[in-house]
Amino acid sequence: MTIQHAPHIAALLARRDRLLGPDTPLFYDQPLHLVRGEGVWLWDHEGRRYLDVYNNVPSVGHCHPDVVAALARQAKTLNVHTRYLDETILNYADDLVRTFDPELSTVTFTCTGSEANDVALQMAQAVTGSTGLICTDTTYHGNTAAVSQLASVFTPVGGYKPHIRRIPSPDSYRVGAGLTGDALRDAYLSQLADAIASLQHAGLGVSAMLVCPIFANEGLPQPPDGFMEAAVKMVREAGGLYIADEVQSGFARTGEHMWGYRQAGPVPDIVTLGKPMGAGHPIGGVVSRRDHLVAYRRQFSYFNTFGGNPVSAAVGHEVLKVIQRERLLDNSREVGQYLRYGLRMLAQRHEVIGDIRGSGLFVGVELVSDRKARSPATQSARAIVNRLRERGILISRIGAHDNVLKLRPPLVFSREHADHLLTEMDATLTECQPNAG
Amino acid sequence: MTIQHAPHIAALLARRDRLLGPDTPLFYDQPLHLVRGEGVWLWDHEGRRYLDVYNNVPSVGHCHPDVVAALARQAKTLNVHTRYLDETILNYADDLVRTFDPELSTVTFTCTGSEANDVALQMAQAVTGSTGLICTDTTYHGNTAAVSQLASVFTPVGGYKPHIRRIPSPDSYRVGAGLTGDALRDAYLSQLADAIASLQHAGLGVSAMLVCPIFANEGLPQPPDGFMEAAVKMVREAGGLYIADEVQSGFARTGEHMWGYRQAGPVPDIVTLGKPMGAGHPIGGVVSRRDHLVAYRRQFSYFNTFGGNPVSAAVGHEVLKVIQRERLLDNSREVGQYLRYGLRMLAQRHEVIGDIRGSGLFVGVELVSDRKARSPATQSARAIVNRLRERGILISRIGAHDNVLKLRPPLVFSREHADHLLTEMDATLTECQPNAG
Repeated sequence: MTIQHAPHIAALLARRDRLLGPDTPLFYDQPLHLVRGEGVWLWDHEGRRYLDVYNNVPSVGHCHPDVVAALARQAKTLNVHTRYLDETILNYADDLVRTFDPELSTVTFTCTGSEANDVALQMAQAVTGSTGLICTDTTYHGNTAAVSQLASVFTPVGGYKPHIRRIPSPDSYRVGAGLTGDALRDAYLSQLADAIASLQHAGLGVSAMLVCPIFANEGLPQPPDGFMEAAVKMVREAGGLYIADEVQSGFARTGEHMWGYRQAGPVPDIVTLGKPMGAGHPIGGVVSRRDHLVAYRRQFSYFNTFGGNPVSAAVGHEVLKVIQRERLLDNSREVGQYLRYGLRMLAQRHEVIGDIRGSGLFVGVELVSDRKARSPATQSARAIVNRLRERGILISRIGAHDNVLKLRPPLVFSREHADHLLTEMDATLTECQPNAG
Repeated sequence: MTIQHAPHIAALLARRDRLLGPDTPLFYDQPLHLVRGEGVWLWDHEGRRYLDVYNNVPSVGHCHPDVVAALARQAKTLNVHTRYLDETILNYADDLVRTFDPELSTVTFTCTGSEANDVALQMAQAVTGSTGLICTDTTYHGNTAAVSQLASVFTPVGGYKPHIRRIPSPDSYRVGAGLTGDALRDAYLSQLADAIASLQHAGLGVSAMLVCPIFANEGLPQPPDGFMEAAVKMVREAGGLYIADEVQSGFARTGEHMWGYRQAGPVPDIVTLGKPMGAGHPIGGVVSRRDHLVAYRRQFSYFNTFGGNPVSAAVGHEVLKVIQRERLLDNSREVGQYLRYGLRMLAQRHEVIGDIRGSGLFVGVELVSDRKARSPATQSARAIVNRLRERGILISRIGAHDNVLKLRPPLVFSREHADHLLTEMDATLTECQPNAG
């Protein structure tokens, strides 16, 4: 299908192709040219306003004035690296680690979530002496050479190396054998046992299991009860660490807890941070047990020129304070519940909605062309995402079949915004009838 | 040697140890607590002023008002990722690639120099199908698992993998065999030939030679005439790419050219950018031939959440404009020449100065305890760096023996600043007599 673009958009696409290369990722059949953001709203070059139900990076709202002020204030005062002493980074680190369980007492600052996961993998190897890694079969954790080995959605350059083992994402909705409860949990655990045995058999050992604690890219499946506790126990018994990638699930996103790992159960050995940490300013981090950081630093003298600089620290600190001051954890929980209630009402009228999942303001709406067979309605999901964009609502989709609508607005999303979204979704679902694809 | 610290500093060190872990890198026997920066000046917590002759990241001067204004303006307007269309990134990319040779026509934005080098290594592997890498024996190019394999100054976690080959940094000053001219060049080239043969023999092939074109971490050695042209030719004949790491040598630092590779000779296949690109804001980039970018993107769908976002692009663009508007390339050349002239005058009175190297405002002063034997005066270099800090001048040291004083101020450094530096260096060199160490 060749898509016609308006001349202004076609010109931008041509410049983009020339300067940034072909095939750079872009959203929507008709790409959006954005020029302004504020709170939950974005505006395009023609002044058209969009309700942002996708962007989790500006989790405190686009262009939050307090964050912009903190950024500008520190940028005009001092911005150097961390080989000088600085109180900004220490004040931020103090408040940040206080939001974790006490054993997770240290933080290593990076500039991106990819860098954070790269450090976490190195740290796990330094601690365990092993290299084997376990992740899920529908995942992505970043773009460095080491971290892209974990990706299942794109193949890394040069293909996969022998130290990766994948387990199916533990999904209680879409399972082949019709298992439920403990039997389902045990079926998933036996796949993990196979992965561990395979790494041990290959002489690689288990360095870590690295997962998003809410399985975001996997489509927010609900794991069977007791799965995470048992899985982490098995990994630790095999000598490996549990790394929780909180790049998507952290910073109050799930509404119930500041960190997704609390919802999942076990306290991780290492937690990685990114996306919403600086509301768009490039910050990431690795929160870990002190002994693990010591083991890593003994093997590698990590230094990051920009990581933890005073401006990044001031911005990160302000984002944390805004989350607390504006009670965004409570808002995420309350508006998230309200939104899921509204979606369940929609599901009564729209057969295409097969399942509604997630917590807080991270909601997955699984679309199916047949509720009984649970057949993924991938093409409908695509059409709905594009149609909602025309109606002024920005969402996306996730999951192994790309049939799960991803609703993940800035955390300042209100009931009124949810009502607006539900109204437009209702109209769009009526327009876009499900089909077999 | 146990060093006593003032109570205020001891308290910061203790907090830092608790929150960031032990052994985080810090400058000076008496660490500096900085609170403000402006132009070439930094201030500590007691209001004491320091002339900054070290920091290359704020190359347009600390807290440049135009850069701060561009940062604040864009941060309050829009900050999202690159899956929407945006003119900020395109305007910046257009002006940036125009400063390179025409074949280097595309740019991929990252957040750090480490990420840029990580992408460059993946790109070289995607283009060549090989994995072997050649770098020098006194180097560091970043902290990701893949890029830390190139480091010789720290061992990577898990040790070195079999795809790395090191060549000696091509040094015309400190060579064992007393060779000069073409004989010296050929001696270095024969080491490169051995490295290539060894990678081919191992079945790894040559993916790339990745070097800083001015050999910054190696202590700014002057390569023998014709070395780089011949070396790059050999690498290309073996199927490999030439990656120039311009993280230190780029953005007008060397005074003669915007990019260090022009001083070295051959046009690279891939250029990586970092440090001064955003004057402290986390930006990096990979500038490459279009066909190489295409080969990479065919194998991996690279996306970087923060890379090339509108705020980073606006900041990077303003830094580039400031370099051009304030004629910092000319200033770097002129003040650099003036500074090296002054240092040569000092060398007439101070036997410890063995060699003065570099170009523009990147100057290496090699200290020796015996000019004839060229014995590295490592302990003197350390003492001088620390004594200059007490005298209000910030410098550092580099090289295989850590005996090369590194003078690398912001590019807004003037003749008056150079005079101030030379006066203080004269006094310090008088105080710190060379010793055998």
